[in-house]
Amino acid sequence: MNILVLNCGSSSVKFQIIETDLELIEQNSDRRLAKGILERIGSHSLITFQVNGNPPIKKDAPLKDHGAAIDMILRWVISPEANLEQIKSLSDIHAVGHRIVHGGEKFSRSVRINPGIITGIEECIELAPLHNPANLKGIRAVSQILGENIPQVAVFDTGFHSTMPETSYLYGLPYHLYRRHKIRRYGFHGTSHRYIGYRYRREHGLRAEKVNIISLHLGNGASACAIKKGASLDTSMGFTPLEGLLMGTRAGDVDASILEYLFHKEGMDFSQLDTMLNKRSGLLGISGLTSDMRELLEEEEENQDRRAKLAIDLFCKSIRKYIGSYFVEMEGKVQAIVFTGGIGENAPVIRERICSGLKCLGLTLENERNKNMYAGKSGEISKDRSKLKAFVYPTNEELLIARDTVRVVKDAPRRW
Amino acid sequence: MNILVLNCGSSSVKFQIIETDLELIEQNSDRRLAKGILERIGSHSLITFQVNGNPPIKKDAPLKDHGAAIDMILRWVISPEANLEQIKSLSDIHAVGHRIVHGGEKFSRSVRINPGIITGIEECIELAPLHNPANLKGIRAVSQILGENIPQVAVFDTGFHSTMPETSYLYGLPYHLYRRHKIRRYGFHGTSHRYIGYRYRREHGLRAEKVNIISLHLGNGASACAIKKGASLDTSMGFTPLEGLLMGTRAGDVDASILEYLFHKEGMDFSQLDTMLNKRSGLLGISGLTSDMRELLEEEEENQDRRAKLAIDLFCKSIRKYIGSYFVEMEGKVQAIVFTGGIGENAPVIRERICSGLKCLGLTLENERNKNMYAGKSGEISKDRSKLKAFVYPTNEELLIARDTVRVVKDAPRRW
Repeated sequence: MNILVLNCGSSSVKFQIIETDLELIEQNSDRRLAKGILERIGSHSLITFQVNGNPPIKKDAPLKDHGAAIDMILRWVISPEANLEQIKSLSDIHAVGHRIVHGGEKFSRSVRINPGIITGIEECIELAPLHNPANLKGIRAVSQILGENIPQVAVFDTGFHSTMPETSYLYGLPYHLYRRHKIRRYGFHGTSHRYIGYRYRREHGLRAEKVNIISLHLGNGASACAIKKGASLDTSMGFTPLEGLLMGTRAGDVDASILEYLFHKEGMDFSQLDTMLNKRSGLLGISGLTSDMRELLEEEEENQDRRAKLAIDLFCKSIRKYIGSYFVEMEGKVQAIVFTGGIGENAPVIRERICSGLKCLGLTLENERNKNMYAGKSGEISKDRSKLKAFVYPTNEELLIARDTVRVVKDAPRRW
Repeated sequence: MNILVLNCGSSSVKFQIIETDLELIEQNSDRRLAKGILERIGSHSLITFQVNGNPPIKKDAPLKDHGAAIDMILRWVISPEANLEQIKSLSDIHAVGHRIVHGGEKFSRSVRINPGIITGIEECIELAPLHNPANLKGIRAVSQILGENIPQVAVFDTGFHSTMPETSYLYGLPYHLYRRHKIRRYGFHGTSHRYIGYRYRREHGLRAEKVNIISLHLGNGASACAIKKGASLDTSMGFTPLEGLLMGTRAGDVDASILEYLFHKEGMDFSQLDTMLNKRSGLLGISGLTSDMRELLEEEEENQDRRAKLAIDLFCKSIRKYIGSYFVEMEGKVQAIVFTGGIGENAPVIRERICSGLKCLGLTLENERNKNMYAGKSGEISKDRSKLKAFVYPTNEELLIARDTVRVVKDAPRRW
């Protein structure tokens, strides 16, 4: 089957075409045929398409909405420019898998989309007011272009964390707020953490129940996940993606009383506070320079910038604190720390700074392995004798979305 | 010297009379002569006085303000009813030590109070709008009653944490908020954590720099402190006492975005949110019953109350998470976990539930020792062979306040 995987953001659409089916999954030989990203939807858009193995093709065009973007993707996919052997017409696309940000407590696993499911996703809009509406636009555009009969599957970013016990997901708030408004920890990056769990299992030939790791998705957004017996036990993002680790522009953990103080001191309202906490904090807020880790590392090394160093130190420390917490939550039964995401996959020096404080948990990095692990490479970065291991695996959420889509469509058991 | 130690809250005054001087400190033979508490100041007040070794004396009287309360204390201290051998007139009180909640970044250690210091404490009012004004009322009442010449010393609840590095005290917020408004982690319970550090040092015959412990002050308010080389390295309370562990009525760590959500869903303003987070959350909020740990334990045991158990489990888990974080922050160089505060000193079953998840850090409780450690008893509760030790020491903030008062007045080095 050829699966179109769609990740619709508020002003962007990312896609991949993945060839997979139950047999290919079993053999782990399913593969990406093409991918692309369309940014700045609603104005003059920037577009990148790429057939696997070929150089990227850059375009620009005015794309008025998500429908226009998906229309453009589909035209390109069947075009002579793409020249995909497997896809000559729209009927060669057999199903569509959507990344849906928030499934609330309703959706713990991937489901085939029908009007009832759409209503369910709509009901979660108030939990993810920026993301779920964009995801829904993508679903509707696909129905319009490929028809109501194309199988569409929803894969939820919160789904993997549905196994968390209530001691992980409840806050110390009045219990009726959970009952009445479902205010609780949901966690995000679920498909990425799930991929890391799957990948670790595959690389080590383990059954899912034997996987006990701490997964670190470190990108512009960042979260940690304690994976115990193959399932999410706890994660650092909470009711929203604000909580947890220090991120590119998000503050991570803060004393909630600071909001009232800023209201009194600066007259900031909730909307301004939200923007500050999510868009102007984190690495950007501390450094006053940039949210980009590569640039911060340059500023630190070339200009000895004090606040660039401080931002990086706070980032690494916030990660170590969660690793310590999860080590205890998992009662010390942690096989490995696994790095993924843009920073996790490509910044050996950050991994080194995080891990240098983890000797007390039995982790010793192998410096040469670590230094050479970037740009899509994967493998162990700890020493052979390290009691607690460390690995780098590039994340691949799209692959899991495509596989879930196949399994849902074929009504096969949904496993890793 | 006879020191009056005062802890003035918004509607209460606690006091102790402690006999101490440099020599007595050296011999650790300074001692409390009397103590008391005056509650519900401003209305019909409840008063308890107690001479050491005698039963408590209960009284009630209308006390219109902190001045009236302190006047009543002093009259009683020199009265035949108290019949204190050392104190026959007000001139037998040689100095007064005040617990001051917030010293901001100005005050890292205890200081003799003069008009400049009062201005400094006033400048910290906006950081502690409920507490510092009450503390100042106490200082002014003492000046009025005992005269301007009585030496008064300010001991700050934030002072012990002034050694935290900026990676501990900075939030992931825009840096100018620290520069402009001093928004940072301050930490509280400083005198209690400092006492625990001192007590551990004394019990083990160590120099201060050799003390590496995690101090847990677990009362209605609760906080953890990583003490490295005798100094505070990190602590769980933050800009305000809201952050950190789940407490009796305080929420502890939450996703700050929840505030905006409640504003939209329930129309709550900052003041209502503040009340909810500080007064109606924590053990009380989860259980829907009480903030009192003894009552929760009863509800759990006698009535199998599900939410009482949940509240206790969340409390214990929040503590274990901080222990894990601090273990990593201290690079595993932790000699002991030390319990103090009402719950920490008197609830063996809670200590047991916290520590049962800490075997992975090398801690094994000795059940008999733990069970018998309450009601003012102190000592080890871990097994002799436990790699990471656990102790219970009843806190004694007043003793440190009295000692600091003597040292400041005598211009002696201020040590533990």
